[in-house]
Amino acid sequence: MKNFPPIDEQIARLRRGTVDFVDEKELRKKLERSEKTGRPLRVKYGIDPSSPDIHLGHTVPLRRLREFQELGHTAVVIWGTATAMVGDPTGRDKTRPQLARDQVEANLETYKTQIGKVLDVERIEHRRNSEWFDEMGFMGAVELLSRMTVARAIERDSFEKRMKAGLPVSLHEIIYPLLQGWDSVAIEADVELGGSDQLFNLLVGRDFQQQEGQEPQVCMTTPIIEGLDGEKKMSKSLGNSIGVADAAVDMFGKVMSLPDALMEKYFLLLTEVPEAEVVQLLAAHPRETKVRLGKELVSWLHDPTAADEAAAEFDRVFKDRALPTDIAEVTLPVDVLREGTVLVATAVARAGLAASGGEARRAMPSGGVKIDGEPVTDIKAALSPGRYLCQVGKRKFAYVTVLAPQ
Amino acid sequence: MKNFPPIDEQIARLRRGTVDFVDEKELRKKLERSEKTGRPLRVKYGIDPSSPDIHLGHTVPLRRLREFQELGHTAVVIWGTATAMVGDPTGRDKTRPQLARDQVEANLETYKTQIGKVLDVERIEHRRNSEWFDEMGFMGAVELLSRMTVARAIERDSFEKRMKAGLPVSLHEIIYPLLQGWDSVAIEADVELGGSDQLFNLLVGRDFQQQEGQEPQVCMTTPIIEGLDGEKKMSKSLGNSIGVADAAVDMFGKVMSLPDALMEKYFLLLTEVPEAEVVQLLAAHPRETKVRLGKELVSWLHDPTAADEAAAEFDRVFKDRALPTDIAEVTLPVDVLREGTVLVATAVARAGLAASGGEARRAMPSGGVKIDGEPVTDIKAALSPGRYLCQVGKRKFAYVTVLAPQ
Repeated sequence: MKNFPPIDEQIARLRRGTVDFVDEKELRKKLERSEKTGRPLRVKYGIDPSSPDIHLGHTVPLRRLREFQELGHTAVVIWGTATAMVGDPTGRDKTRPQLARDQVEANLETYKTQIGKVLDVERIEHRRNSEWFDEMGFMGAVELLSRMTVARAIERDSFEKRMKAGLPVSLHEIIYPLLQGWDSVAIEADVELGGSDQLFNLLVGRDFQQQEGQEPQVCMTTPIIEGLDGEKKMSKSLGNSIGVADAAVDMFGKVMSLPDALMEKYFLLLTEVPEAEVVQLLAAHPRETKVRLGKELVSWLHDPTAADEAAAEFDRVFKDRALPTDIAEVTLPVDVLREGTVLVATAVARAGLAASGGEARRAMPSGGVKIDGEPVTDIKAALSPGRYLCQVGKRKFAYVTVLAPQ
Repeated sequence: MKNFPPIDEQIARLRRGTVDFVDEKELRKKLERSEKTGRPLRVKYGIDPSSPDIHLGHTVPLRRLREFQELGHTAVVIWGTATAMVGDPTGRDKTRPQLARDQVEANLETYKTQIGKVLDVERIEHRRNSEWFDEMGFMGAVELLSRMTVARAIERDSFEKRMKAGLPVSLHEIIYPLLQGWDSVAIEADVELGGSDQLFNLLVGRDFQQQEGQEPQVCMTTPIIEGLDGEKKMSKSLGNSIGVADAAVDMFGKVMSLPDALMEKYFLLLTEVPEAEVVQLLAAHPRETKVRLGKELVSWLHDPTAADEAAAEFDRVFKDRALPTDIAEVTLPVDVLREGTVLVATAVARAGLAASGGEARRAMPSGGVKIDGEPVTDIKAALSPGRYLCQVGKRKFAYVTVLAPQ
């Protein structure tokens, strides 16, 4: 017989930071049954290996999954080998490109290593959803489609907006929630976790389970975190993400570049620092607070030694260069991009560090233009989407963000 | 090298009775190439074995297919073993029930025999569309969905009406045209035939073929014929159909019950009688004209001897009973139905042949109420959907049509 912590304690812990909870009463019932039977709850979290790296945004629900593990329950990770090829349209303002199967498999292996930074990997039930979808065949897909009306499928915010604007929504996009929903039936989930923009998809799982005579899963969503730009949902393809596999120094540096307003959310969702202490930290100087946040995150995803070293390295590089304390933040408009990148000369001119691209180009061969502290002498050098410390001469600095094309 | 009739002759013959023709120029090009290469055109017609019998409505495009056969081209009949399980929503005001695979297979065998009455069975290429759909698998279905936008899929009249009225349109219904369209790619159709309500589905085939680098098929639609009620599209489930396998006597009797206004259409679309002669026939007494139509149809679907015998039998039964020549036609509203049937007593009262159901019931035990010439003495007897000659006493007659529940 398995022992779980007292139910009120479990509920209190799980309620913290939860956005949608459908619903708490049902979870209590399931926990009571677990206690009686010794059978752990099956807690589902689906990951589509659609880009090669996991970032901090993914870790918010993963940390919740870890909590369930710590409370004695079973983490069932669904590897969306089928769904990745459809592409989750949630929150997208255009059709997501479909992926090739071998790309999905390659991403999956990277992901598996990376979730080990958050979850107890010894106690994960790994499932690929192509396991059941391949078996269902063509007519199975038709049968799945028959379970939802067109009206319900397109009532989602993002679809309605796109359709009203006359933008195309492809038919295969509306099948996505049905696939995610069927995953819950296939693994008989007790709970499903997801970001708060996933609620629609999670609720489809409840419906399908009821149709199949299963007890419906409890749906719990976690907050979405914004990326380095402070505005958009963290996303690898927007170039505003902190990857869980980022080198310690890079990770620390990115944290140091965060807008002050994001610190509270990051502390509460991504660290174990008690709420009362977070309040005190936020009252301190932003730079000190960010150092603490950076150390917390690097300690978690690497180790405390790496965190200290990264902080020292950051200090050495930036303090020694006597950076001004009020460096401007400049975000370049997307239309400066040529084939996905922007010339360094163009970037520094647009950021106001040179009077023109020509002036910038002339300064480059002699080392007068630096990116992240390094002189760039090739006048054809270009920047990919990301955030850079740009310097022209000794005194002119700006943090320049190059946005990814939409 | 195969010989085809002169192209102008082929076109003239195929243009007759065609509703939509997308487009004639392309057909001419294909025919010219056929003449040059000796390769016959591949002419597609899809049949979903969704109910167990073929009726005259189906024979309109089948006759067109026969014409193509006679002109030397290849008839490719697609047996919709996959599509029948989806159910064509065309013109439907509600979701069509999905069928079981074994039911579809059983229907298919009956259909195969029945199309032999119209087509040259020695020269049909039979294909089942589950052949390619089963192979495509679940992800193939997703890929197919990605080829159409939601907006285009739901812009069809019947869906828009249903959705505006708040009635459910199930997601699997909108996949139907995609399946039908893919059939054209799978068999590399040169021409597709269908009823005029099928135009949307036929055009999807053109798009898919172009996407796949094939020459797009020519789409030709034929008129829809109304059934015995003279109003609704002929349909087995509405009880207003004449089946190609109906017994000669039944077939003849049903023709004799047709509303006069339908005769011209039936002559032109279902017989070989020259147009000029049809004009003369329609100027004659309707009864005589119907006798001719009945004989034409029975001669075609049975044989001329059977046609003469059916006419004689009809004469004997009805003339000998000295039926009045102007019997009223009464169609009962659907709300008289109880579990799909209506009591004989209720029917004759509602038709005005008795003052009340009670009066009708009292007349029944002594043989005072006859249905199709036979006394009905059981007061609990009921009528299924169909058309009946009802008689109360010696003088009161009416043709009563019992509609099927929608």
